[in-house]
Amino acid sequence: MGNRLSEFKKIAVIGTGVIGNGWIARFLAQGFDVIAFDPAEGAQQRTQKALDQAWPSLVKIGLAEGADQNRLTFMPTIEQAVCEADLIQENVPEREELKKSVLASIDAYAKEDAIIGSSTSGIMPSVLQEGLKHPERLIVAHPFNPVYILPLVELVAGQKTDTHTIDRAKSFYASIGMKPLVIQKEIEGHLADRLMEALWREALHLVNDGVATTEEVDAAIIYGAGLRWAQMGPFLTFHLAGGEKGMRHMLEQFGPALKLPWTKLEAPELTDELKEKVITGCESHAGDTTIADLENKRNEFLVELLSLVKSYWPETTATDNILVEK
Amino acid sequence: MGNRLSEFKKIAVIGTGVIGNGWIARFLAQGFDVIAFDPAEGAQQRTQKALDQAWPSLVKIGLAEGADQNRLTFMPTIEQAVCEADLIQENVPEREELKKSVLASIDAYAKEDAIIGSSTSGIMPSVLQEGLKHPERLIVAHPFNPVYILPLVELVAGQKTDTHTIDRAKSFYASIGMKPLVIQKEIEGHLADRLMEALWREALHLVNDGVATTEEVDAAIIYGAGLRWAQMGPFLTFHLAGGEKGMRHMLEQFGPALKLPWTKLEAPELTDELKEKVITGCESHAGDTTIADLENKRNEFLVELLSLVKSYWPETTATDNILVEK
Repeated sequence: MGNRLSEFKKIAVIGTGVIGNGWIARFLAQGFDVIAFDPAEGAQQRTQKALDQAWPSLVKIGLAEGADQNRLTFMPTIEQAVCEADLIQENVPEREELKKSVLASIDAYAKEDAIIGSSTSGIMPSVLQEGLKHPERLIVAHPFNPVYILPLVELVAGQKTDTHTIDRAKSFYASIGMKPLVIQKEIEGHLADRLMEALWREALHLVNDGVATTEEVDAAIIYGAGLRWAQMGPFLTFHLAGGEKGMRHMLEQFGPALKLPWTKLEAPELTDELKEKVITGCESHAGDTTIADLENKRNEFLVELLSLVKSYWPETTATDNILVEK
Repeated sequence: MGNRLSEFKKIAVIGTGVIGNGWIARFLAQGFDVIAFDPAEGAQQRTQKALDQAWPSLVKIGLAEGADQNRLTFMPTIEQAVCEADLIQENVPEREELKKSVLASIDAYAKEDAIIGSSTSGIMPSVLQEGLKHPERLIVAHPFNPVYILPLVELVAGQKTDTHTIDRAKSFYASIGMKPLVIQKEIEGHLADRLMEALWREALHLVNDGVATTEEVDAAIIYGAGLRWAQMGPFLTFHLAGGEKGMRHMLEQFGPALKLPWTKLEAPELTDELKEKVITGCESHAGDTTIADLENKRNEFLVELLSLVKSYWPETTATDNILVEK
């Protein structure tokens, strides 16, 4: 381990809220020098607290050689924070004008070949790179909380992002234990947050309509789909739910449900083209593995996961198990 | 273990597709006599195959005393299948007219105090109980695939369902290792499937719009939110993402995003009333546990889960980790 990609030595983290601090923890654990900037009062103390919270998990995951909390330095200005950095991670609040103004400062002082990764959850990189001197080095690098544990990072290029920037960013984030997912088309909310946001909005509707409490919504996810989603996403899950014929059967059987009011979200038309995309996508993902083999793997995983959930997580009262004769 | 609730001895399973077979496996593993009916050719052989697939997982979870695959009997008619059953689980294809006609037959031959549980994913129980002689004993009992492992079962009462039926059904499903979640209001798609369907429809839009492949959508779930959802639902997840002030801060910060086009689903108006419902819901769920303690638990769980995922699940090629200098 250590500084695996020799071109990246110093990382700057601009904005130290929950996400910025998560990045700091991950970068330090991976053995980097980290320079931070946040104008808010008490920021440094909050970062120290967040690091203390994160460190035991990072020790369990495994620290890189030379990883040290003391390799973090707070700087009083953006200029001082970014001027020597090889990668700059921006995490200021999700307001377009604020992000653009901070990115303009970063752009003014950063080394020409530094990569600027924005943690924005929703803003498109083409919007963020408007007006930058060196827009080609900006990319969206959107992580998930807790950033120091969850592997996903979405990489989104803007119209002016250099291909080389995407390649370098992908290598870098992969080298620090992450799963970089390059998004093919920039849209607001990128990819993962659109999926989450759809579920989140439906959840808000259900609470708003008095169908369920927040705790009941949570229970409805945890004890069902949530367990499956730790292992496979919605497509492969439904591929397995379709029995031997997989997604092809699934779409025949549940395709018509797309017309039903099962959510407040209108579905796209299930055209032959979309059907084929979905079916061949699942079949190619599954590859040579039979549905039965996928099921076996899924089952073994779920049995272990259930016992893990039981040992770590308190009962919800939403499904209070009535005491019954055993 | 064994037949824990003395009033339930024999279970009938009507319709033996993926869901019906999942129920059969769970009921047999819990030590019940199971009587099955399915008019399709080869149904019995397919059920045997499904049982062979499920049994090793059930052995790992732990069989009840007397659990035996040989305690399954297929009957040639619905009448013979249901006439002695204490609980009848209906799992025929999701077509309203078909379900109603099968339920009418079950209703005609079932014992008066038997419970009829329908596995319907979307149809409201009030619709299913129209025209039944004894509608008071019908309830929706909607499970999740694989039924013999996942604990969630949604219980939904129709307008004519007796309160006693809900209580008995809740006790019964809890006694066979499940988490019965009683849904407060009947709506199409119940609760869990509405959340899943919203995510599923958004996923179909993204594939349809060329933003991502099915495998990329799956990766966007698995390596991020999916890992969290195995442990906590969307509300508690966002409660923790809000930092020390929890959901209250979260709604201030990301509330405005509800107006943005981050999904094709329109959000409800974030009224003060809805805000309070969501905030107090999360605070009451978290109870006396501080955000820091919740974070610690989450972290410990996620670290173990990540190593579990790694050991059980193949890499996706959507996030191909570039070989980098270590």
